[in-house]
Amino acid sequence: MKICGFLQKNNNLEERSRIVSSFKERTAKNLLSCDNSGGEARFRRTESDFSNLYARELLPAKNGEEPTMQFLLEVVEILTSYIRKTFDRSTKVLDFHHPHQLLEGIEGFNLELSDQPESLEQILVDCRDTLKYGVRTGHPRFFNQLSTGLDIVGLAGEWLTSTANTNMFTYEIAPVFVLMEQLTLKKMREIVGWPDGEGDGIFSPGGAISNMYSVMIARYKFFPEVKTKGMAAAPRLVLFTSEHSHYSIKKASAALGFGTENLILLNTDERGRVIPADLEAKVIEAKRKGYVPLFVTATAGTTVYGAFDPINEIADICEKYNMWLHVDGAWGGGLLMSRKHRHKLNGVERANSVTWNPHKMMGVPLQCSAILVRERGLLQGCNSMCAGYLFQPDKQYDVTYDTGDKAIQCGRHVDIFKFWLMWKAKGTVGFEQHIDKCLDLSAYLYNKIKNREGFKMVFKGEPQHTNVCFWYIPPSLRSLPDGEERRQRLHKVAPKIKAMMMESGTTMVGYQPQGDKVNFFRMVISNPAATRSDIDFLVEEIERLGHDL
Amino acid sequence: MKICGFLQKNNNLEERSRIVSSFKERTAKNLLSCDNSGGEARFRRTESDFSNLYARELLPAKNGEEPTMQFLLEVVEILTSYIRKTFDRSTKVLDFHHPHQLLEGIEGFNLELSDQPESLEQILVDCRDTLKYGVRTGHPRFFNQLSTGLDIVGLAGEWLTSTANTNMFTYEIAPVFVLMEQLTLKKMREIVGWPDGEGDGIFSPGGAISNMYSVMIARYKFFPEVKTKGMAAAPRLVLFTSEHSHYSIKKASAALGFGTENLILLNTDERGRVIPADLEAKVIEAKRKGYVPLFVTATAGTTVYGAFDPINEIADICEKYNMWLHVDGAWGGGLLMSRKHRHKLNGVERANSVTWNPHKMMGVPLQCSAILVRERGLLQGCNSMCAGYLFQPDKQYDVTYDTGDKAIQCGRHVDIFKFWLMWKAKGTVGFEQHIDKCLDLSAYLYNKIKNREGFKMVFKGEPQHTNVCFWYIPPSLRSLPDGEERRQRLHKVAPKIKAMMMESGTTMVGYQPQGDKVNFFRMVISNPAATRSDIDFLVEEIERLGHDL
Repeated sequence: MKICGFLQKNNNLEERSRIVSSFKERTAKNLLSCDNSGGEARFRRTESDFSNLYARELLPAKNGEEPTMQFLLEVVEILTSYIRKTFDRSTKVLDFHHPHQLLEGIEGFNLELSDQPESLEQILVDCRDTLKYGVRTGHPRFFNQLSTGLDIVGLAGEWLTSTANTNMFTYEIAPVFVLMEQLTLKKMREIVGWPDGEGDGIFSPGGAISNMYSVMIARYKFFPEVKTKGMAAAPRLVLFTSEHSHYSIKKASAALGFGTENLILLNTDERGRVIPADLEAKVIEAKRKGYVPLFVTATAGTTVYGAFDPINEIADICEKYNMWLHVDGAWGGGLLMSRKHRHKLNGVERANSVTWNPHKMMGVPLQCSAILVRERGLLQGCNSMCAGYLFQPDKQYDVTYDTGDKAIQCGRHVDIFKFWLMWKAKGTVGFEQHIDKCLDLSAYLYNKIKNREGFKMVFKGEPQHTNVCFWYIPPSLRSLPDGEERRQRLHKVAPKIKAMMMESGTTMVGYQPQGDKVNFFRMVISNPAATRSDIDFLVEEIERLGHDL
Repeated sequence: MKICGFLQKNNNLEERSRIVSSFKERTAKNLLSCDNSGGEARFRRTESDFSNLYARELLPAKNGEEPTMQFLLEVVEILTSYIRKTFDRSTKVLDFHHPHQLLEGIEGFNLELSDQPESLEQILVDCRDTLKYGVRTGHPRFFNQLSTGLDIVGLAGEWLTSTANTNMFTYEIAPVFVLMEQLTLKKMREIVGWPDGEGDGIFSPGGAISNMYSVMIARYKFFPEVKTKGMAAAPRLVLFTSEHSHYSIKKASAALGFGTENLILLNTDERGRVIPADLEAKVIEAKRKGYVPLFVTATAGTTVYGAFDPINEIADICEKYNMWLHVDGAWGGGLLMSRKHRHKLNGVERANSVTWNPHKMMGVPLQCSAILVRERGLLQGCNSMCAGYLFQPDKQYDVTYDTGDKAIQCGRHVDIFKFWLMWKAKGTVGFEQHIDKCLDLSAYLYNKIKNREGFKMVFKGEPQHTNVCFWYIPPSLRSLPDGEERRQRLHKVAPKIKAMMMESGTTMVGYQPQGDKVNFFRMVISNPAATRSDIDFLVEEIERLGHDL
């Protein structure tokens, strides 16, 4: 029996296997003696390698308990070794290979599926290879997405969730998880500021689906007959969102039958915040054309700039024109946990619905996204179809806890447990500290580069969120006059640096163009492992890689 | 350092903690000596309990490696102990409590979240309690849902997935998983029977969303302008599905703006299979009214009866009237893996799209659902919004591997790895054996009860899938004449027996009414742990609990 992780460092397979075997023998004796002292002896080692073991010999097979435990412990060893390396700055963030290289079966890693089973030894090798050629999203220098980091308690929660392997649709088969979801959603609504945490909500498979829910619910609130009669039963409905808002609002407008042309984009100021007067003007214009303004998204933390739209001013306009106000706080919602930063979402309590992804700024493992709704009953009314085979009214328990019919899904993954467990383990204050620290780090980065030679900020002033947007200008471009040539050359800089970063595997950060602005870096910090030294490293790495471009 | 699972049997906490501590000390010495023999010593034990440890001391905290490993191993001990018990028929399937009991904090299990952190000792207790009050969906006598069982390799895959903690939207951050998804989808399309496995597809968060995709894609194929102009740009579109089909088709028709009234339900025969002539009559009727028939679902394995609609005959009608044919094989798709049973889906290769949930009949852990599309390009065309911050065209690798823009989601959970790993470990033949075995077991149940006193089948003949639908008629009802009183009393029998089953925790099986039929049991077998003895147990348990009703 092998202890997870203690022998992982040995790369020579034969040598390693020899040590493992001898260690296993020694440990097994100890275990048995220990086990006897506790009463009931459960394990004797019979297998020392997995090359002759197959999945069919694991539980529920007869005598499957021992190989099952050994196999799982071996997997855990692989995982704990990976976790240790993830947090070790001397390891790479990734070991980049092109798709064709991985498909060609690099170093024996064969992705093809076959008719006949592979041995468990091969399965373990596949697990190692999968991690080897992947990306360490928990590495202290991984800054590439809004979701970064690897929270250990959250991870433990996910391991338990997959072991419990159940489904959120009924209390019947997920009693504890259903209650955890209800309590957690209530707590989130309290934090949003709805009286007594009243309202409704559900965890959904990501912010895009949460945003889609908000549009569906708004439509149901104002035009419930669309559920049965379709969009033909409603007048021409229009939706409003920032030109900087997340593309999921556009996806929802296409999917739900509004059409992307009926999603009207709002102008923003230089910092990427919606200009309320532009919203009002466009609402009036839409009404003049005979359209019905239905729904407005205020983004709390845009994807690229990290901008917070002025919710209160937008809410005034929504009230005036009787429109649904949705706050997309997928990225910025986490700031509600911080007494220092929550003012950036002032007015959020006036929203009719809020998207909030704990898997982003709060560091919860993927996926964990909530849609919160102020008015109770709309989610159920909008989505329920009363399937008799799941939602029997004549169960012995209070069936109002069978919340599955609120969802557009039927089966629904248990996304709540890891979040609940993290909240228990960190407390509200733990989330607050994490968020304050990330924002401090982004301020540190901003102050470090705002006047640094070769760096240029995309917009002026301290960022509202942890997004720091900047160009790196290599020496060869610094003396070029503003103009098309400079723009074209600058546009290629970030992609080149990013490619070199990935090839060398040292760090990862995102880039993109935005509007008429050529490619720039978007640094975001949600990673609890990041420190000032990692920020310094990133800046120096960009300079190192970009210097000769 | 504690070995997972070896001490779990000791329930007295103090005693247990004493043994653990002493064992940890002894083992730690061994580990160090072993470790030294391997070269680099990594661990020294400094903590023997978790009551003074907090999440903030785990990685990435300084010196966090040791407590992290200890905490994770302790969690693994809890999980492996749970797994062993799951397969042990002497344990209960569940330990039922009402919602109010769990909310009141039964036996100290406190679900409320607090501002201050809890110790890791409490977190571990919470993990144990969460499992204790949950439902063992992998137990050999859990038959309650279409998704049952606990596959060990799949579970290992999920543990790895959550450790990798990444997102499917780009090759950039999920290179291996993206390729696995592509290869696996291709393999599934080959099995469906599309030439060379050509076509497209994506894994989605469950069969309901997969079915929603099919409706969206069909609409995009025939009326692409709906994406930009909304449903107003299309004529009145109608959809067709079996009256026995899954309620997600109805959810999709509501969500996507068709309206549930434009979903036309098709009559079925006594076995729950669509009557093709009824489809054709209703298509003609719809056209006569000026509506446009767009989309037909053929269900391959209905939820309650397990019926397979006659795909070839439906495909003929779809071709004749130029309609999209979707096969909902969420439940029955797995039978494609069986040479013996795949004929039940004859004609599936004529479908334009297919839903197939490996998390049901193939025993893959939740969730794992694929939507397969015969024509390449539609998924992308229908859903893509070309978000610049994710899908940069100027990356260094072949960006056609960035498949995220096909999805209605943005972030997407990695559902592929566990499935890929199981396929490697079992081979195609392993899935085939599992499916054949489940169908054999259902035939065994059918033959056992079809003429048994007190049992009455809901429909005649051997079931097509593993669904066996039957009434249990207690002695007190057997002599009652057919009529309303008998119906009313019989309607209450299954719920009462189910409630008693759950209270006693011995087994779980579903029930529901269907059409004019009062509540009956729907037995389904997808659980790889189930044997004939468990089927016998279920039948006897129903008789035991229902005898005196």
